Amino acid sequence: MSTTPATELSRRDLIHRASALAGAAAVLGAATPGAHAATRKGTSLKQGDVILFQGDSITDAGRDKENKNPNSAAAFGDGYALMIASRLLGEHAPLQLKCYNRGISGHKVPDLDARWQADTLDLKPAVLSILIGVNDIWHKLNENYAGTVEDYEQGFTALLAKTRAALPEVLLVICDPFALRCGAVNDTWYPEFDERRAAARRVSDNAGAVWVPFQEVFDKAVKDGIEPAYWAADGVHPTMAGHALMADTWFEAVKLR
Amino acid sequence: MSTTPATELSRRDLIHRASALAGAAAVLGAATPGAHAATRKGTSLKQGDVILFQGDSITDAGRDKENKNPNSAAAFGDGYALMIASRLLGEHAPLQLKCYNRGISGHKVPDLDARWQADTLDLKPAVLSILIGVNDIWHKLNENYAGTVEDYEQGFTALLAKTRAALPEVLLVICDPFALRCGAVNDTWYPEFDERRAAARRVSDNAGAVWVPFQEVFDKAVKDGIEPAYWAADGVHPTMAGHALMADTWFEAVKLR
Repeated sequence: MSTTPATELSRRDLIHRASALAGAAAVLGAATPGAHAATRKGTSLKQGDVILFQGDSITDAGRDKENKNPNSAAAFGDGYALMIASRLLGEHAPLQLKCYNRGISGHKVPDLDARWQADTLDLKPAVLSILIGVNDIWHKLNENYAGTVEDYEQGFTALLAKTRAALPEVLLVICDPFALRCGAVNDTWYPEFDERRAAARRVSDNAGAVWVPFQEVFDKAVKDGIEPAYWAADGVHPTMAGHALMADTWFEAVKLR
Repeated sequence: MSTTPATELSRRDLIHRASALAGAAAVLGAATPGAHAATRKGTSLKQGDVILFQGDSITDAGRDKENKNPNSAAAFGDGYALMIASRLLGEHAPLQLKCYNRGISGHKVPDLDARWQADTLDLKPAVLSILIGVNDIWHKLNENYAGTVEDYEQGFTALLAKTRAALPEVLLVICDPFALRCGAVNDTWYPEFDERRAAARRVSDNAGAVWVPFQEVFDKAVKDGIEPAYWAADGVHPTMAGHALMADTWFEAVKLR
């Protein structure tokens, strides 16, 4: 610790943070608002609203999958979903929100589809946040799955159509599937992974969803001089720092109040 | 979800949040600055600084105690320490901080003392945050421990003196041991628990530590109409909402930058 005036290092740190925030704001400002532009000024939560996080291991984050209770830390794991839900519960106490995490490690779009009724529609979320796509390419590269980019886009589109039909008022939040170039993520992922990300963005826009630009924010953080592994040691699974940056990015994009 | 103009409910929610923030600010403003008043305008973190969380089950929060690594979510559990450390790591990436959680469920001051060299002093923290005291009374009420309020104050004082001697520059952060009146916490805890909290405050002030006023912030939240169990179902162990409120309160008090 130092209580002396700002050193060169702490100035650099401040500049980094200001730059990171400006970068996030620029990324968000540049995002296409889409059909639901008006709602993006902020969306009010209501009494008893259900907030649900869906996805793969990044969302799962080591949660106890036997624990089906809302608002349970053990059922939430230790990732961005825990951080976001805890903050929502702390800041909106009078609303008595119910927050669930139903991410499952290893899952792809077809895996979500297979469990969508019980794990999503039956929970009647007011806000549904989905992060899916890394395993759709990773398992393909490992020759354990044959789904193409087109399969991903069509399957994801159908999943959201089914969701909108069952839950016309749901606020859909689609999180950019992202990867950092380190660990398990190498040149074999590209350009297909970027094509899959572009597909996810089209699916999101066509569904009138809020888009959470994780890849852009991580790219900006790396461009600012922080090594990729600081944010995700294996390129896929975020560190504590990575999950914190995700949670901040999510709140910047979703603007719940 | 609602995108209509603010309802009475959302106005109440906004008032609640504004009031909670104002309450926290008032509590913090009223706190005795003590010997380190000048540093409370904000304290700069330095390259490679170690941040250490110590305490009992509230700090432990289900962490994997076999995992001794810094900056590991599994080693951090799912409580306020994870939330604070993740945010520090995300916001101060250029500093390459090292964050550790060494809280252990069930521990009292004498238990910390017995493992202080290996679990605290050897880690050479620049910032050391301690939350201890609930088991010192709880185990006594359960007739598993005989320590008095005086034992608590003397033991805690000696622990901090030992710490200051080994780490003259450490920023000490003492967290108010708190309880919510529900679950396991009933009238048998009082007035002794308040006497113990007052002792912790004296220990903190005498050591030139930053005081984190958890009890005042939880009392304010309850006074604003949120039931105690919303913040800590058994009166002692915080819910997700409780841990989030703790993390916010910690940052308000400690003002790291």
